[in-house]
Amino acid sequence: MILLFTDFGFGGPYLGEMTAVLRRAAPEVPVVNLMADAPAFRPDLAGCLLAVLLEGAVLPGDVLLGVVDPGVGGAREPLACRVDGRWLVGPDNGLFELALRRARSAETFRIAWRPERLSASFHGRDLFAPVAARLARGQRHDLEPAPATRFPGWPDDPPVVVHVDRYGNAVTGLRAEGLAPGAVLVAGGVRLARARTFSDVPPGQPFWYANSSGLAEVAVNGGSAAARLGLEPGAPVEVA
Amino acid sequence: MILLFTDFGFGGPYLGEMTAVLRRAAPEVPVVNLMADAPAFRPDLAGCLLAVLLEGAVLPGDVLLGVVDPGVGGAREPLACRVDGRWLVGPDNGLFELALRRARSAETFRIAWRPERLSASFHGRDLFAPVAARLARGQRHDLEPAPATRFPGWPDDPPVVVHVDRYGNAVTGLRAEGLAPGAVLVAGGVRLARARTFSDVPPGQPFWYANSSGLAEVAVNGGSAAARLGLEPGAPVEVA
Amino acid sequence: MILLFTDFGFGGPYLGEMTAVLRRAAPEVPVVNLMADAPAFRPDLAGCLLAVLLEGAVLPGDVLLGVVDPGVGGAREPLACRVDGRWLVGPDNGLFELALRRARSAETFRIAWRPERLSASFHGRDLFAPVAARLARGQRHDLEPAPATRFPGWPDDPPVVVHVDRYGNAVTGLRAEGLAPGAVLVAGGVRLARARTFSDVPPGQPFWYANSSGLAEVAVNGGSAAARLGLEPGAPVEVA
Repeated sequence: MILLFTDFGFGGPYLGEMTAVLRRAAPEVPVVNLMADAPAFRPDLAGCLLAVLLEGAVLPGDVLLGVVDPGVGGAREPLACRVDGRWLVGPDNGLFELALRRARSAETFRIAWRPERLSASFHGRDLFAPVAARLARGQRHDLEPAPATRFPGWPDDPPVVVHVDRYGNAVTGLRAEGLAPGAVLVAGGVRLARARTFSDVPPGQPFWYANSSGLAEVAVNGGSAAARLGLEPGAPVEVA
Repeated sequence: MILLFTDFGFGGPYLGEMTAVLRRAAPEVPVVNLMADAPAFRPDLAGCLLAVLLEGAVLPGDVLLGVVDPGVGGAREPLACRVDGRWLVGPDNGLFELALRRARSAETFRIAWRPERLSASFHGRDLFAPVAARLARGQRHDLEPAPATRFPGWPDDPPVVVHVDRYGNAVTGLRAEGLAPGAVLVAGGVRLARARTFSDVPPGQPFWYANSSGLAEVAVNGGSAAARLGLEPGAPVEVA
Repeated sequence: MILLFTDFGFGGPYLGEMTAVLRRAAPEVPVVNLMADAPAFRPDLAGCLLAVLLEGAVLPGDVLLGVVDPGVGGAREPLACRVDGRWLVGPDNGLFELALRRARSAETFRIAWRPERLSASFHGRDLFAPVAARLARGQRHDLEPAPATRFPGWPDDPPVVVHVDRYGNAVTGLRAEGLAPGAVLVAGGVRLARARTFSDVPPGQPFWYANSSGLAEVAVNGGSAAARLGLEPGAPVEVA
């Protein structure tokens, strides 16, 4: 399976063009759009989501094609990594930093291959997708072992909102398992106690809980935490 | 075929994670995302759309995986129904009430199976998707005949807007076949005559028509009825 | 492969219903959603995007199912075209005008077939999708050679914004190859020099470049050109 993780959004032809390349190059491999609204321009924040989804939704043998690539067409290199049996393909810009940091086993590779036609702004379609399709079919001939660029200054658990979903729930970069059971979070100036899930909290009350990916998520039962607390991606979240 | 009907929205990883589970569990079964922006938190309104789509887009042998589930993780039970040869899988919260009410033949089942790992907030991925995949493959061993919770007070045809589409058309909960040929609707304070379709009405004029699912829909030829009449999901629509 | 190009948006059941019809009628043919937010109600502007995507993403043997169809249910005819080995199926309203104008070889056909049940507002599902599925399987028996309606007054390269993407980049109807290397564009009252891509320009500076489809696109490195310059679909773009 090839899973797509991008900041493309659903509009425009980007997801479709990339999917068409994958389906032509590896017709027998299912392609699933895992997330298309990762934080735009922010490999650091997108990488928090990617790292937990890698653990929960990607299996050994799968390929995660990750494209949050504000430096496309510039000096950043393309990168392939093998993390606990899963392939990651995308830009060498820190998007895979947290995944690499948390890996039990990791190898990193330079992508030697270049397509005949490489656009300046869409390496997802022209370079990463063909490589991902080949890896999904077990072909590794484009790769040479090489170190990835590392970002040691980036936090393990960025204390910010990394995603707001349709319901207005605000996903943070904090892994819930690293927080004390009784931890209080502060977001939008409001102190938030932990709950197991929505139905354990009175309607309208803000709280936080360990979401289905293992991240601390700020929520309101039956309402929008983002609207209620004024949260958007990048908003700070404190552990009180 | 497995058809997804949810209020997840397109953002975030929810649709992708659920689809990945289905594709792994039933690789030979096509998965189609039928609707992802059903009215959030409102199984009653979402159920109007689900019931007409069930009739129009779902065939005997298919599985409709329906997740509008504000009570996830709480006391509501999971439910499977067989309605005129189609399987429905989702929460026992009224989402399937209108489908059951309109069924020529219906059986309802308790889902006895629980996954090893059940998140508190995403039963769509952890519980309903695996069951839907098994039903799509003809495996029923998780099910025991049991009554569904019924909601006799809910109207057959809720007189409200249940969905606004990209063009600004406002779909109502009223089935067109139940309205007199010359019925006048009132929405946003404006009286609306019936037309066959857009091209039968002068540009800019609001009207209502029987949409492609059989529901009464308030529209403006070449414009947005939602913007023009101030309509959003939940807005009342009267039969004059 | 069948590629979908529509103005449906992602909301509602339209894409899903059309996809379900295609998957049932041609289970062995991959279906890829190429673009769902083409300019609504504007076959002229949508046709600019369709024509470049046809060249870049659609291969001989593929079917492009194009539905931007404000006149659905009215007098406009359905149309099938064979353009350089690719099939186009959709309304005869100018959506394929630029594709036909730029074709090396083109044949156009009347669609003689009508479904038993044809809704007044959703020919994409009821008429175009079944025909597209048959063409993808090599079955042409619904077609009779016939001229398409032509729109000679429409410009080859509409000097307007035709699409704004998630990042705020504003795609124009101008093909980059038709512009002088040093051409200056004016959009939102600002003069824009050409650059190769984002990373060649200081952060925050507006510019234009040849995008991955070959169209001139107005952009800001690390920011939203649409917000910065007040651009939306239909906004004029001048060649200075």
